[in-house]
Amino acid sequence: MSSLQIVFSTLKEAQARLALENRAAKDKALAAAAAAIDRDRAAILAANARDLEKARSGGMKESLLDRLLLNDRRIDGIIEGIETVAAQEDPVGKVRAGWTLPNGLFIEQVLAPLGVAAIIYESRPNVTADCTALAYKAGCSILLRGSSSALESNKALVKAIKAGLEEGGGIADAVALAVSGSRDEVSEILEARGWIDVVLPRGGKELIRRVVENARIPVIETGEGNCHIYVEGSADIDRAVEIIANAKLQKPGACNAVETLLVRRDALAEIMPKLAVSLAGKAELRCDAAARTAICAGAMPAGLVIKDAGEEDWAAEFLDYILAVKTVDTCDEAIRHINRYGTKHSEAILTNDLQAAEQFRARVDAACVYVNASTRFTDGGEFGFGAELGISTQKFHARGPMGLEALTTIKYLISGSGQIRS
Amino acid sequence: MSSLQIVFSTLKEAQARLALENRAAKDKALAAAAAAIDRDRAAILAANARDLEKARSGGMKESLLDRLLLNDRRIDGIIEGIETVAAQEDPVGKVRAGWTLPNGLFIEQVLAPLGVAAIIYESRPNVTADCTALAYKAGCSILLRGSSSALESNKALVKAIKAGLEEGGGIADAVALAVSGSRDEVSEILEARGWIDVVLPRGGKELIRRVVENARIPVIETGEGNCHIYVEGSADIDRAVEIIANAKLQKPGACNAVETLLVRRDALAEIMPKLAVSLAGKAELRCDAAARTAICAGAMPAGLVIKDAGEEDWAAEFLDYILAVKTVDTCDEAIRHINRYGTKHSEAILTNDLQAAEQFRARVDAACVYVNASTRFTDGGEFGFGAELGISTQKFHARGPMGLEALTTIKYLISGSGQIRS
Repeated sequence: MSSLQIVFSTLKEAQARLALENRAAKDKALAAAAAAIDRDRAAILAANARDLEKARSGGMKESLLDRLLLNDRRIDGIIEGIETVAAQEDPVGKVRAGWTLPNGLFIEQVLAPLGVAAIIYESRPNVTADCTALAYKAGCSILLRGSSSALESNKALVKAIKAGLEEGGGIADAVALAVSGSRDEVSEILEARGWIDVVLPRGGKELIRRVVENARIPVIETGEGNCHIYVEGSADIDRAVEIIANAKLQKPGACNAVETLLVRRDALAEIMPKLAVSLAGKAELRCDAAARTAICAGAMPAGLVIKDAGEEDWAAEFLDYILAVKTVDTCDEAIRHINRYGTKHSEAILTNDLQAAEQFRARVDAACVYVNASTRFTDGGEFGFGAELGISTQKFHARGPMGLEALTTIKYLISGSGQIRS
Repeated sequence: MSSLQIVFSTLKEAQARLALENRAAKDKALAAAAAAIDRDRAAILAANARDLEKARSGGMKESLLDRLLLNDRRIDGIIEGIETVAAQEDPVGKVRAGWTLPNGLFIEQVLAPLGVAAIIYESRPNVTADCTALAYKAGCSILLRGSSSALESNKALVKAIKAGLEEGGGIADAVALAVSGSRDEVSEILEARGWIDVVLPRGGKELIRRVVENARIPVIETGEGNCHIYVEGSADIDRAVEIIANAKLQKPGACNAVETLLVRRDALAEIMPKLAVSLAGKAELRCDAAARTAICAGAMPAGLVIKDAGEEDWAAEFLDYILAVKTVDTCDEAIRHINRYGTKHSEAILTNDLQAAEQFRARVDAACVYVNASTRFTDGGEFGFGAELGISTQKFHARGPMGLEALTTIKYLISGSGQIRS
């Protein structure tokens, strides 16, 4: 038995016990885990400083260093996240449907814990606490496999969480951190049929691709977001400009940031000059000819960067201060473009035309379809789930921001009084 | 492009249109498909006769020939199945949850069609019609890959169904039969990422294993059922004997038939002699020493076959007139045995002890957990789903008998009035 197989077995055994814990017991254990993180703040920050030191000397770039960084404010956020998860309704035992057969058999469809979850993720240490809290509340064990760059931070966090769970009368064995950092470790997780019920990759494209291609256990794909906003002439154009700027600029590295703007021809003349002013010096525009012409018809704002858009821009997830702009003639053309190039993540229409809004909602194939709002709301926290396991871009099992229900399965409970089948 | 890739593309395009059909339109098309099967009865029976002829001359054994056989009564059953599916509520557009955020964003979680389904199945031709009806009603296209032994029957059925859908104003392109019969065809289906949203293997262990191991697209595992009945002394023993006999004898080849009986020691003396009488000449018993002794204490009924049970019997899915019998000391021991050897399909407790019933329901990890009833009810038809895609033995996405909802995903619809994220 490899050391990881012992971990699998411990997690499975702990999950069977955790599945029987009631809400009060789970909430108490989570509250104690949050308190332990607060208490161990100094140790966690010191461990994080060691990770940062190593990463900096290894030449990690600034934006990634920032992802890795913990400070008091971020630790407050982690603690608050755990408390918010504890405050959520317990999904376990929720009766989703129930009916009685003509022969008197009473059937209930009840939510039950999915089992043992594994998460393979990149540097952000808050993921460690968020996912642990969600799994625990849903009655699932969790195997955490963070990146080696965050190993010291994760060790310190998991140590505090496990101590807290223990102190709160909970089941510390339901949480484990994979520590070897080797690629073999990931392979072993991906092949753990019968031990792990779901694996969630959270990170860059390369990580997700590797997990999807190699897993012999169920995977939930997350994260890739080539999101669109489609705007029509009937929209409130000033508000549309605000929404587009928000969806592009507020956090361009997020998967729910907009990447391509689709403008119906009837909106071009009014929106493009205003958008150019709003984005000048902040984001580069990659426009088709019609959109470019509409901008150039007005005065060019200082600092505006416009380039010609190419086919590759429609498919790109820039995750950067870049917005592709394409002109379309109809809502149908916009929907077809989105269903061709989109990643089924978050898509928005800005319009005052009811029929167009309904067409868009019905035909766009995505986890989240917005009417007159920024795509940036696709997020477990924003949706009210307390935290999120990630944002599923697949249609199987879970879709969109994943909270507690993504870690449940159903169980049919059938109560009889001697029924036999005739 | 291989010919199958053209099929994938047609199915995907048809699904996008089918997703927009309302319930009335889908029901009308399904009713017309049922009528077309009725009308083409002679052609379907003739095609089936050719399949049977070929199978018989190829030496197919009688039980498999019976599975392949169609007759007027079975065609009536197929027609009735389609009509029952049409009569089910439309899952598409069902609002499962909805809430408003503090900023006024209104979020709805709505059921939407999963997309394109593929089913790879063995000889039973009714599966062709059942799965097609369920997929159509759920707004999904379906690719049918039946066994080569049923090819003529399936061709005739699919021809009638497609003609009927067309006549009823529906979308015939949403249904396709894979006809080459080659193993490459299966491989191509299993690798169709981006084209097929789920594949369901329905058939023997070997088929399911092959699909699970090779699929690069989501799979729902079905069918393997090592089901248990656990009986305690507090149960109504005469009724218990009836339930056990029903679960073993009524259709031993079914995945929901009982394979192992667990008897608590306090029930042994009363139940074993009665069970021996009930099963004598009908099913072989493979007993542990205590169970055997309990039988031998009474008069041995004529025709009774008892053998000693071995470890391999606890893990066996006999699918035959064989029942393994094991003595346990506690409900806890029974639950541990089931969670160790069971296939998470259907498990029953026969008792009058409330605490034991609750323990069993909470701790047994299976799709269907029964109290005081036969395991044979685990079936989409019995559950009231009209038909079934199969019985999922996995916990991911769908579990237990699968009706319309197994072919849905969720979609979040978010309605705003200009909200941006701060």
